[in-house]
Amino acid sequence: MADVYDKVMELAKRRGFVWPSSEIYGSVAGLIDYGPLGAMMKRKIENLWRDYYVAREGYFEIECPTVGEEAIYIASGHVKGFADKMVQCPHCKEYHRADHVCEAHNIEHAETKTLGELTEILRNLPCPACGKTFDGAEAHYFNLMFHTTIGPGSQRTGYLRPETAQGIFTDFGRLLRFYRDKLPFGTVQIGKSYRNEISPRQGMIRLREFTQAEAEIFVHPQHKEHPNFERYADRVVPLRGIRQQENDEDPVAITIREAVKSGIVANEYVGYYIALTHDFLISCGADPARIRFRQHLPDERAHYATDCWDAEVLSARFGWVEVVGIADRTDYDLKAHAAQSGDSFTAFIPYDEEKKVREMKIVADMGALGPKFKGKAKAVAELLAASKPTDKGAEIVLDGEKILIPPELYKVREQETVIRGEEVRPHVIEPSYGIDRILYSVLEHAFDEEDVDGETRTVLRISKKIAPVQVAVLPLMARDGLDTIALELMAEIQDEGLIAQYDDSGAIGRRYRRQDEIGTPFAVTVDYDTKEDNTVTLRDRDSMKQIRIPKDHLAETLRKLIRGKVAFENL
Amino acid sequence: MADVYDKVMELAKRRGFVWPSSEIYGSVAGLIDYGPLGAMMKRKIENLWRDYYVAREGYFEIECPTVGEEAIYIASGHVKGFADKMVQCPHCKEYHRADHVCEAHNIEHAETKTLGELTEILRNLPCPACGKTFDGAEAHYFNLMFHTTIGPGSQRTGYLRPETAQGIFTDFGRLLRFYRDKLPFGTVQIGKSYRNEISPRQGMIRLREFTQAEAEIFVHPQHKEHPNFERYADRVVPLRGIRQQENDEDPVAITIREAVKSGIVANEYVGYYIALTHDFLISCGADPARIRFRQHLPDERAHYATDCWDAEVLSARFGWVEVVGIADRTDYDLKAHAAQSGDSFTAFIPYDEEKKVREMKIVADMGALGPKFKGKAKAVAELLAASKPTDKGAEIVLDGEKILIPPELYKVREQETVIRGEEVRPHVIEPSYGIDRILYSVLEHAFDEEDVDGETRTVLRISKKIAPVQVAVLPLMARDGLDTIALELMAEIQDEGLIAQYDDSGAIGRRYRRQDEIGTPFAVTVDYDTKEDNTVTLRDRDSMKQIRIPKDHLAETLRKLIRGKVAFENL
Repeated sequence: MADVYDKVMELAKRRGFVWPSSEIYGSVAGLIDYGPLGAMMKRKIENLWRDYYVAREGYFEIECPTVGEEAIYIASGHVKGFADKMVQCPHCKEYHRADHVCEAHNIEHAETKTLGELTEILRNLPCPACGKTFDGAEAHYFNLMFHTTIGPGSQRTGYLRPETAQGIFTDFGRLLRFYRDKLPFGTVQIGKSYRNEISPRQGMIRLREFTQAEAEIFVHPQHKEHPNFERYADRVVPLRGIRQQENDEDPVAITIREAVKSGIVANEYVGYYIALTHDFLISCGADPARIRFRQHLPDERAHYATDCWDAEVLSARFGWVEVVGIADRTDYDLKAHAAQSGDSFTAFIPYDEEKKVREMKIVADMGALGPKFKGKAKAVAELLAASKPTDKGAEIVLDGEKILIPPELYKVREQETVIRGEEVRPHVIEPSYGIDRILYSVLEHAFDEEDVDGETRTVLRISKKIAPVQVAVLPLMARDGLDTIALELMAEIQDEGLIAQYDDSGAIGRRYRRQDEIGTPFAVTVDYDTKEDNTVTLRDRDSMKQIRIPKDHLAETLRKLIRGKVAFENL
Repeated sequence: MADVYDKVMELAKRRGFVWPSSEIYGSVAGLIDYGPLGAMMKRKIENLWRDYYVAREGYFEIECPTVGEEAIYIASGHVKGFADKMVQCPHCKEYHRADHVCEAHNIEHAETKTLGELTEILRNLPCPACGKTFDGAEAHYFNLMFHTTIGPGSQRTGYLRPETAQGIFTDFGRLLRFYRDKLPFGTVQIGKSYRNEISPRQGMIRLREFTQAEAEIFVHPQHKEHPNFERYADRVVPLRGIRQQENDEDPVAITIREAVKSGIVANEYVGYYIALTHDFLISCGADPARIRFRQHLPDERAHYATDCWDAEVLSARFGWVEVVGIADRTDYDLKAHAAQSGDSFTAFIPYDEEKKVREMKIVADMGALGPKFKGKAKAVAELLAASKPTDKGAEIVLDGEKILIPPELYKVREQETVIRGEEVRPHVIEPSYGIDRILYSVLEHAFDEEDVDGETRTVLRISKKIAPVQVAVLPLMARDGLDTIALELMAEIQDEGLIAQYDDSGAIGRRYRRQDEIGTPFAVTVDYDTKEDNTVTLRDRDSMKQIRIPKDHLAETLRKLIRGKVAFENL
């Protein structure tokens, strides 16, 4: 029997949400096309995300290329570490993820096993493609970055970015100046990222090319208090911390304030973005009962991260699916790029009050040094100025050789230095969203079938904010001037910035069903009464209730309904 | 002396419009990052484009992957033909475009020369990198698609798409059904495309990764009249047709109606999009005096295109730069994908009136065929039904062998067939926009320096619609409650959907200059009078005029100003 995944994907294909990419050539696993309705819905999810992060948080968006040079990904660690363990069947030559083959045979913790262990286990397991055993095959690493060459003649290795974040990190210095050298500041990026999966078989959940929306927030390492923490402090969120996982317990419902105070969540920033993400996912239309936040266990957490939480959404087919990751990445990324590039990747943070430091400083005596060091006297003087005087003299290193300069060759003066502040390497808080997975989750949660007068009504109970079509305009008949009135209304509705669809073909009931199926929240019907009394029928998707309202107020009323300023029940 | 390009790029870098990508690692030619202001401006240009093509034309947007399998680009011709002629210096090993080296030495028509001719010419020319001659080097083709591998083990060749169009073409069948099997219909895509340039040296004009906005409009081959032609018919556009180019004449200013009627432009569709593009570029802020449309000459036009025009924009550094291409591509693309995939790539177009055709049809006589053909009798009967009867009998091909079936083995009946319509392969009209080039052109045209009180004022006279920041909110002092009022106003302005920037540091004059430089159209100043009479100062970027208006009307007034519903002079 078809499960809800099959039904959702059948609908998605038939109505133009999601199609297999280059289907006419057999398509490629892990690549999808968004059709007209899917692309519209995806854009709305992205724009809703911008409402949260760009408009409300005030983090500017930047846009970097998807192709990047090798140095970036050497620094980030992807060249070395962004790999899955793979095995090739010695018989049918098919490639598989070694851990997935093991998991399918109930071998626990397959993901953390070494290549040697996996090879050993696989000897007795059958290839999922041809059924013969993997005996003789060795598990090895496969790097998941798409590889390419920039320019002619294999001059320069390039990779398709595995995450949008690195573009923000490499621009850190420019961004710091843009934000006038102040911490904290945030920068976001929405765009394509790539992961050359070995053998993706999970539809929209495991894509080789996907859209990420990432925010990188640069904070002072000692100040992880979010300036607007109060906005979400009392929001209750379902947290499945390390303890609940170890005891196999359900998530606890807890306020973010309490979660941070009790130390379940590492700091206000991480807590704030857990709560914001909870709000965002529900705004998109995900079912609150099918959302939870799972903390990374110490052995799955990247070694540098102090705390990491995944927003997970329940799918009937795929179980709990990670859709957002929220991590405190510390200074790992900036440190790595500093080491690779030689740039400092620090911010100068002035002290509230300048500090004065008294030090003994050496002032060289050129008259004494000159005769002794000749051509090198100037170099010696400079080295002396930077060294510390002791009773026995000052030690310098000249041309690789340690030399003790006796006290009679210099003078010592007490000097006051003013220290205005210090160079600080910020920590990075990173909320990272998988837009495609969110879109799929919303479709699955919104999908509903109900019995209406003995017939099955399929309806996408999608949020008004992200429905691809917001209003259907339906003349009862495509004649007698009803079509003219409907087209005029259509223009007025579009002028309010709403996405409307005109449909004049088939019985009105069938047209309603067509709109229900794509989740259009409201339908307007123009009938013969409209010509008499200037009213139209307004139908609500979810309740199927209909009311008559004057057509002069229609466009404005619809705008209020969509923006949530008024409810249909109160009209 | 710095020309305007240098000045614009210095400003663009300093203020966060455009940065070299991965600058800390030396950056890569042809890859750029859009900083916070650049990304905002780019998104606005894209959304303005959507206003024209999605909202007004009604063409839905789709989104396809940037990585595509080889079959797509074999069909499209890119695997074979998307190449530049290249030469490698035998001494310093540097790669160059062969035609560009020749052009730099005033060799005419270098672009159309063969590899042999170029090799011969290059023998005596010096390498631009090291100065030694190319003697001994051979010119050859370099394919400009970025190449990669999808999945492990070089299983499947993939390319980064050289244009967004192919994703729309391969989805043609799905799209046709989405549009309920009717012509014409249009589909658009905005996204990254790639061109692995040999040696790009023109900043934002020649990028290896760039953003295209393309519309593919599928029309009936015999009906190239645009349904809304009247909208732009009387618009006057500067056309530099084939004749003007051959005679080295200036463009002619002519209405689109006249251009189509006189045959200068091939049809209404091409004409309509020339006019729409003219309107769009001016809306973006390009200078009308620096826009022209140039027709492709017969020898540069793709062999399949019936007509092709480039929108060109004048740059001080680069001359006339192509920013948009508008082509009638006929059925070339759909025919190519039909041949490669075996799908039909046609639309069934019903006739206005059904046609009835009387034909003589063979009805096989199984009683007569059975004994003669035994097991193959059924196959013979089916072949007979599809063949034409003649006096001598009916010819069929059975197992590759021609057989004449004598009339006594079948009966002939006159039959009436109703033909409801025909399969038609649509022609494609393609307006294709280079978003990065448009953004650069707008920056260059908007850049202005003027003398104000003995100081140079730098101002970006950018369109209000695409300015990255629309309103600056400036408290005269960051104290005495002025900051509180300013932040309240800021929130109200943002609530109207406008992008506002708050700035409280430095002298007010300096803050105005900072905003002028990034093209912010309006600035609001909160001063001590505001506390008395609830008015604020509103300053217009272009005229530098200031008026006082009540702060209660501010947000609404700004929205009207930005949307062009009211002019600053009339306030």
